[in-house]
Amino acid sequence: MYTPSAAALIIGDEILSGRTQDVNMHHLAKRLSEHRITLKEARFIKDEAQTIASSINHLRTKHDYVFTSGGIGPTHDDITADAIALAFEVQINHHPQAMKILEHYYAERKIDFNSSRQRMARIPVGATLIENPITKAPGFLIGNVYVMAGVPKVFAAMLENILPSLNQGPVFFSTSLRLTQPEGDIAVKIREISQTHPELSIGSYPFFQDNIIGTNIVIKGTNKVQFESAIKQVKALISYP
Amino acid sequence: MYTPSAAALIIGDEILSGRTQDVNMHHLAKRLSEHRITLKEARFIKDEAQTIASSINHLRTKHDYVFTSGGIGPTHDDITADAIALAFEVQINHHPQAMKILEHYYAERKIDFNSSRQRMARIPVGATLIENPITKAPGFLIGNVYVMAGVPKVFAAMLENILPSLNQGPVFFSTSLRLTQPEGDIAVKIREISQTHPELSIGSYPFFQDNIIGTNIVIKGTNKVQFESAIKQVKALISYP
Repeated sequence: MYTPSAAALIIGDEILSGRTQDVNMHHLAKRLSEHRITLKEARFIKDEAQTIASSINHLRTKHDYVFTSGGIGPTHDDITADAIALAFEVQINHHPQAMKILEHYYAERKIDFNSSRQRMARIPVGATLIENPITKAPGFLIGNVYVMAGVPKVFAAMLENILPSLNQGPVFFSTSLRLTQPEGDIAVKIREISQTHPELSIGSYPFFQDNIIGTNIVIKGTNKVQFESAIKQVKALISYP
Repeated sequence: MYTPSAAALIIGDEILSGRTQDVNMHHLAKRLSEHRITLKEARFIKDEAQTIASSINHLRTKHDYVFTSGGIGPTHDDITADAIALAFEVQINHHPQAMKILEHYYAERKIDFNSSRQRMARIPVGATLIENPITKAPGFLIGNVYVMAGVPKVFAAMLENILPSLNQGPVFFSTSLRLTQPEGDIAVKIREISQTHPELSIGSYPFFQDNIIGTNIVIKGTNKVQFESAIKQVKALISYP
C-alpha cells in the first residue's frame, strides 16, 4: 500500500515579512499526518503571478497532492486564481455556480455584490469548486491542486471538506519516547537501532526543559515486529550508559 | 540603494509531520524585516541529502543570502553539513577550531567528547564558523549560505551573531491601518490607491474579530511623499462609502 505525498504552497507577503505567524501549514501538516498522507515539502512565496505559477507547475508533477493557501479574496493583491490559470494554461472566467452562491449570500445580507466581490467567483476553466461554509467564496480543485483561502478558519473548513476524498496511506505505528540523556550520549546506540530496523523511520530531537538536556526519539513504521523491537531497545537506553 | 533578498531553508521531518510548530522561520522573517532584508521565500524540506543539496543549489544562485535551520546535531538524522558539502562539491572534515571549541566545552563539564559529539565539528572545507554561545557546536558560512541549528534558542543566538555582517536595504516607511469595512467594500478604492502610488507596496489583509469583519491595509515604501499621500487616502476610506 502506498502513502500519498503532498506539498503545501503558502502564498502571501504577510508571513514572509514576519507580520503574521503561519498557522495554515502547521494545521495542514497535522491533518495530513492524521490522514496518513506525507507532507514532503512546504513553500512560502510572495504574491507574484510568475512565482506562483512556476511553483505550482514544479510541485504538481512531483507530488500526488498540492495544497495552496492565500490570495483568493476580492482585493488587488489576490492573484492566486489568475496565477493558477496561467500555470495550467487555461482561461479564467466567472464560474456560474460560484456566482450563484455569492449572489445569494450577499443578497441575503443586503450587501452590494459589487465587481470586487464578483472577482471571488473567477475560477480557472476546468476546475471544480471547494465549498466554503464560512464566508461562501469557494476554493477550487484543478488537476491535483487544491486552492484554498488564507484566512485560517476558512482554510481549515475547506480542508475538512476535501480530506474525505483523498487517498490514505497504510496504517502505521508511531510513538515518541522521552530520554533524559543528551543526544551525544545515545547517538551511537540510536544509529545502531535505526540501522537494524531499516523499515522504520527513527528521528532524534533534543529538548532543553527544567534544566534537563534530553532527547525525544520518534519511531514510526508499518512493521509491528520492528516497531515493538525498536521501542524495547530505545527504552533500554533509559538507564544507559 | 538595493534591498538584499534572502531565502530560508528549514530542514527536518518534525515540522512537516505536524509534530512541531515552526518558530525559526517566523523569527528569521521578523529579524530580517527589521534589518531591511527581504525574505523572498522559505522552504521546509525533509532530512534527505539530495533534497537538501538541490534546494541549496537552487536558492543560493537566486538570492543574496540563504539561511538554513536544522540537522547539525550529533545523531544519525543530522545530515545537513554533509548535504551542504555535496551541494558545494567540497570535502567535509573535522574542523580544527570547531574540535578545539567542543573539546574544551565537554572537558569543562566532564562529559565524554565521543565520536557522535565530534560529528558536530565536521564542517565543509572552505566554510567559516558561526559561533554558538549556548551549546557551543558551531554553525558555518559557506558561499552565501548560513547553516544554523534547529533548536530555536541556538538558531536565534547564531542569527544575532551574523546579522551585523549582512548588508541592509534602504530605510523605508511602513504602517498598518485598521479599517472596519470588509475587503469587498473597499477593494476598488484600494486598487486605485495602489495603482496611483506605484512605488509603494500595499497589502490588504482581512480580519474577523469581535463580530467585526474588517481589513488591515499595510503600506510600505521608501518614497515619503507617496507614503503620506497613500495613508491620507486610505484613512479617508474609514467613513467610506
